[in-house]
Amino acid sequence: MESILETIKSPADLRTLSLPQMEKLAGEIRGLLIHTVSQTGGHLAPNLGVVELTIALHRVFDSPRDRIVWDVGHQAYVHKILTGRRQRFATLRQLGGISGFPKREESEHDAFGVGHSSTSISAALGIVLARDINKEKHKVVAVIGDGSLTGGQAYEALNYAGHLERDLTVILNDNEMSIDRNVGAMSEYLSKLRTDPAYYRMKRDVEYLLKRIPAIGERVASTVERLKDGLKYLVVPGMLFEELGFTYIGPIDGHNLAALIDVLQKSKPMAGPVLIHVITRKGKGYGPAESNADKFHGVGPFRVESGEIVKNGNKPSYTAVFGDAMIAVAEQDPDVIAITAAMPEGTGLKQFAARFPGRFFDVGIAEPNAVTMAAGLAAAGKKPVVAIYSTFLQRAYDQVIHDVCLQRLPVVFAIDRAGIVGEDGPTHQGVFDCSYLRSIPGLTIMAPKDENELRHMLYTAINLDGPAAIRYPRGCGLGADTGEQLRAIEIGRGEELRAGKDVALLAAGVMADPCLAASDLLARNGIRAGVVNARFIKPLDENLIRRLARDVGVIVTVEDNALAGGFGSAVLEYVNAANLNWVKIFRIGLPDKFIEHGTRPQLLARYGLTGEGIAAVVASFMQRFGVK
Amino acid sequence: MESILETIKSPADLRTLSLPQMEKLAGEIRGLLIHTVSQTGGHLAPNLGVVELTIALHRVFDSPRDRIVWDVGHQAYVHKILTGRRQRFATLRQLGGISGFPKREESEHDAFGVGHSSTSISAALGIVLARDINKEKHKVVAVIGDGSLTGGQAYEALNYAGHLERDLTVILNDNEMSIDRNVGAMSEYLSKLRTDPAYYRMKRDVEYLLKRIPAIGERVASTVERLKDGLKYLVVPGMLFEELGFTYIGPIDGHNLAALIDVLQKSKPMAGPVLIHVITRKGKGYGPAESNADKFHGVGPFRVESGEIVKNGNKPSYTAVFGDAMIAVAEQDPDVIAITAAMPEGTGLKQFAARFPGRFFDVGIAEPNAVTMAAGLAAAGKKPVVAIYSTFLQRAYDQVIHDVCLQRLPVVFAIDRAGIVGEDGPTHQGVFDCSYLRSIPGLTIMAPKDENELRHMLYTAINLDGPAAIRYPRGCGLGADTGEQLRAIEIGRGEELRAGKDVALLAAGVMADPCLAASDLLARNGIRAGVVNARFIKPLDENLIRRLARDVGVIVTVEDNALAGGFGSAVLEYVNAANLNWVKIFRIGLPDKFIEHGTRPQLLARYGLTGEGIAAVVASFMQRFGVK
Repeated sequence: MESILETIKSPADLRTLSLPQMEKLAGEIRGLLIHTVSQTGGHLAPNLGVVELTIALHRVFDSPRDRIVWDVGHQAYVHKILTGRRQRFATLRQLGGISGFPKREESEHDAFGVGHSSTSISAALGIVLARDINKEKHKVVAVIGDGSLTGGQAYEALNYAGHLERDLTVILNDNEMSIDRNVGAMSEYLSKLRTDPAYYRMKRDVEYLLKRIPAIGERVASTVERLKDGLKYLVVPGMLFEELGFTYIGPIDGHNLAALIDVLQKSKPMAGPVLIHVITRKGKGYGPAESNADKFHGVGPFRVESGEIVKNGNKPSYTAVFGDAMIAVAEQDPDVIAITAAMPEGTGLKQFAARFPGRFFDVGIAEPNAVTMAAGLAAAGKKPVVAIYSTFLQRAYDQVIHDVCLQRLPVVFAIDRAGIVGEDGPTHQGVFDCSYLRSIPGLTIMAPKDENELRHMLYTAINLDGPAAIRYPRGCGLGADTGEQLRAIEIGRGEELRAGKDVALLAAGVMADPCLAASDLLARNGIRAGVVNARFIKPLDENLIRRLARDVGVIVTVEDNALAGGFGSAVLEYVNAANLNWVKIFRIGLPDKFIEHGTRPQLLARYGLTGEGIAAVVASFMQRFGVK
Repeated sequence: MESILETIKSPADLRTLSLPQMEKLAGEIRGLLIHTVSQTGGHLAPNLGVVELTIALHRVFDSPRDRIVWDVGHQAYVHKILTGRRQRFATLRQLGGISGFPKREESEHDAFGVGHSSTSISAALGIVLARDINKEKHKVVAVIGDGSLTGGQAYEALNYAGHLERDLTVILNDNEMSIDRNVGAMSEYLSKLRTDPAYYRMKRDVEYLLKRIPAIGERVASTVERLKDGLKYLVVPGMLFEELGFTYIGPIDGHNLAALIDVLQKSKPMAGPVLIHVITRKGKGYGPAESNADKFHGVGPFRVESGEIVKNGNKPSYTAVFGDAMIAVAEQDPDVIAITAAMPEGTGLKQFAARFPGRFFDVGIAEPNAVTMAAGLAAAGKKPVVAIYSTFLQRAYDQVIHDVCLQRLPVVFAIDRAGIVGEDGPTHQGVFDCSYLRSIPGLTIMAPKDENELRHMLYTAINLDGPAAIRYPRGCGLGADTGEQLRAIEIGRGEELRAGKDVALLAAGVMADPCLAASDLLARNGIRAGVVNARFIKPLDENLIRRLARDVGVIVTVEDNALAGGFGSAVLEYVNAANLNWVKIFRIGLPDKFIEHGTRPQLLARYGLTGEGIAAVVASFMQRFGVK
């Protein structure tokens, strides 16, 4: 049978298809999604859930004239397939290939780039305002998941959109979960809307009833008017959105193409902000993903037949070791509390949650609330650990500064996905945290050299009477023994891993391992390179740096953070302040650009953060300046 | 007549007072507020509005056992007066005196420190969770203004509190404005609640009506049940809060002490989250503040009789010059758009708003929405300027990185209140922006030496095809001529203000002026100090630095930003990367601590950022290292 998908070069081609053809197309797209993501990894379940919705959107709206803004963007694969990127789809998330998120430079159909949650209504509103100023007529559509709706920015934008009363379509893609199970009163409210089939019949019945009310005295006449007005509360299920100024339509079955197209068409002439509530099922059409949407939210390569994940090494991940260590510290200390912003699985806290349900809090996609709530817990004597990805902590920067550090409250930030993250690309590379955190007074910042040291650092942080952050990377550890008893590490004390007379490689966190490899390689060239595990980004081990300055005289800092303002910059500051003028410093780290997507090993190699890369740069530095 | 206020040593003393005595006390507190703030400056109108509310809270709740968390905190003066700080109240906001915001270290009654908006429910929720884990019984009360409710974090916390169903009291202090006129659909919703007096009578009438409905068939019986259920939508005005899981009580007259105490008492035994909607009037009891609550929100010293502000110098402020320049650039360029987050007055945009109402957007206290909406406008071809205070931009850090800089969108950040701000203290000192912004790839960061250069920098930024930030301070400019025609400044080009053979003072922004003064002072000691206006924090003028390194050999960087990661740190990085090993660098800036409150001149002097301070440090540096 002929492929319909191959005939779709642009969204306009959808308009020639019959309903059965579009339904067949949906099946073909699902096949392509499953096949491709099983090889590249990526966000499978969210995309399987929006196949019909995306077809309907592109059938009804005229992209790129009409603008479709995707929230988070990990559900935009179908959109990419339909907007001229089908043939490049196999390159998804690979170095040089197409991005796993909408990207303005990739296509004119990607109206706004994205990667983090809850921004779509804000961005769409900006586009709406520009349109109205220009007196243009196109439509602007934001597609936002129910999970993203827990993020405060989505509410800020809804609130403002309701106030402005401009034409704007918000599609609420309600799949009853964001990444993990959804939380929050809003989620319960949506669930109530979903499960009540009676609204439309109700409306008829109420009208019948009102007609039968007998003639009434003047006293209650105005009340009857109010009662009639009030009926909207009964017959319009999306009252909450109506109160915020939106026209609510729904709920609509998000896998019924005919219904979707009909509703979207009917909504087009409506004035003012409209919210269309669409019910979808994550993983739709692929059994393993339907039954385990959580696992197939963002997934590595897997076997299509079984849904079995292709294992990538046997060493436990930093995330898993952190999760185990959290249970260990919580067993010793009843004040330890774990907080996540919608990432119990991603941050390794699932088992903690099962073991200590009363000490585990998932606030939803709401990082500011997570951080300030942690500060409140700490103010009341608890020892909260906020487990969060490096780039997501950017969302709560002010809260880290004011609510935690200014008050010197003992909150621990367990910063997962620090450094190069890989295929998720620039929005997820955790390469700024050293820079944006180390200017905050009073915050202790640690980075472990391996997964075992992560455990001790967690223990250290929890027993520190003040705020602390621990940054560690995505992916597997080195296979270090994690059976050691937990112990406190002296604050601000680095660890000399290998002595070396010619140059000292001062490594931030997991860069210690490639530095050791570099030291081996340099030894072959006769360069004796010592290796130091800095352990602390802040406070620096000033004694150690002074000793290295005196005894070695050449220091190379190595970090998987931006060079601008990063760890090496902190070393420069100290050396400058301490007037260690003679010491030669060379800094290895990430250049002043956004880091593209690709695998972690590819990117580490590209940016010289491997043993070979470090050795080559150090050798060239030593030669150029004749310091050997 | 005897003073009641003088008898109040702690909140417990309130419990011995009769209602008339408390009413008299309210008057005495207003007198003290007006008298003190007329001399110290501060947040007058918000505090006049909460006199009765604060008395009632401390009468009914038992602080510090019960915890009262103030949102923003600029309305906590009455709380301070009632909790043992009356006698120190005259030191309000003065160096060494009490803070203008709640501060944990200042009193056990200050349950949580604050300074920015919309955090109180999050913090209170953390305290609630700790209480429940500890099986304690005390009450936790968050007091939040309607303005703060436009901030997404407040919604995140409401949403999560509604979900958790713990005992928590939220007082919605609804004064129909935050700082400027409030915006957003929520604000309109609150206004609807406020202005409808009919709710309670309604309930009676509806019940009467329902009784008169004739016997009905089975078909509509379930509908009647639903109708009765639905009545809560009619008789409970706070439906929106009810949907979020709160019990809504209100609206209550916030200046009726008896009613307030009654409602607070009755709410105490209620289970789950309760929201009490209290209507207050900003500036209550002081004519000038009532009629101009905006002006008296945060105010400098004023004459009590007339409400006339005591003028402090005749030179226009940076804010005012920015506002005028915005009008000038907008007249030339129809694509220029201005955005503020609830600060049209504070950021100098009031006149712009009047002149270009269709190109001015006040999103409310919602910085993330402001920044992403600006990115949306820029994506649609506009040139948005987000006028924002330095510390408030911390609230939208992720949005600056992702939505603006990653997409290279031409959004201009006009960063007011950068550097030392003064009496508002550590939560408002804009001393981190150089550090947290300069690690973001592709962002141009400027700092003008005076108010005239600010104009040119605004023009430069608006005509730059990419993201740009301009940081400038609170307060008056130097009196520079601002009549020059607007012109573009070459990107990354500094300006040598004075040549000098012995040392080059490399000044970030407004530090140029004290550097010139320092140069004069140093000349008396025979030290020839050149002065350079760096103009750009990023990109640095590398040619200029190389020339200074070669010709002078000693560079002193001067900035009103944290030294950690700041401007001087960027200079160190460049000098290191360019291998200008011989150059001696000394960095002057703010130490690694939170900067306390005090006047701007006092703090600049304390941290050595005056002509005298800079000269002294430079002279000592030159002597110590014998570089002269």
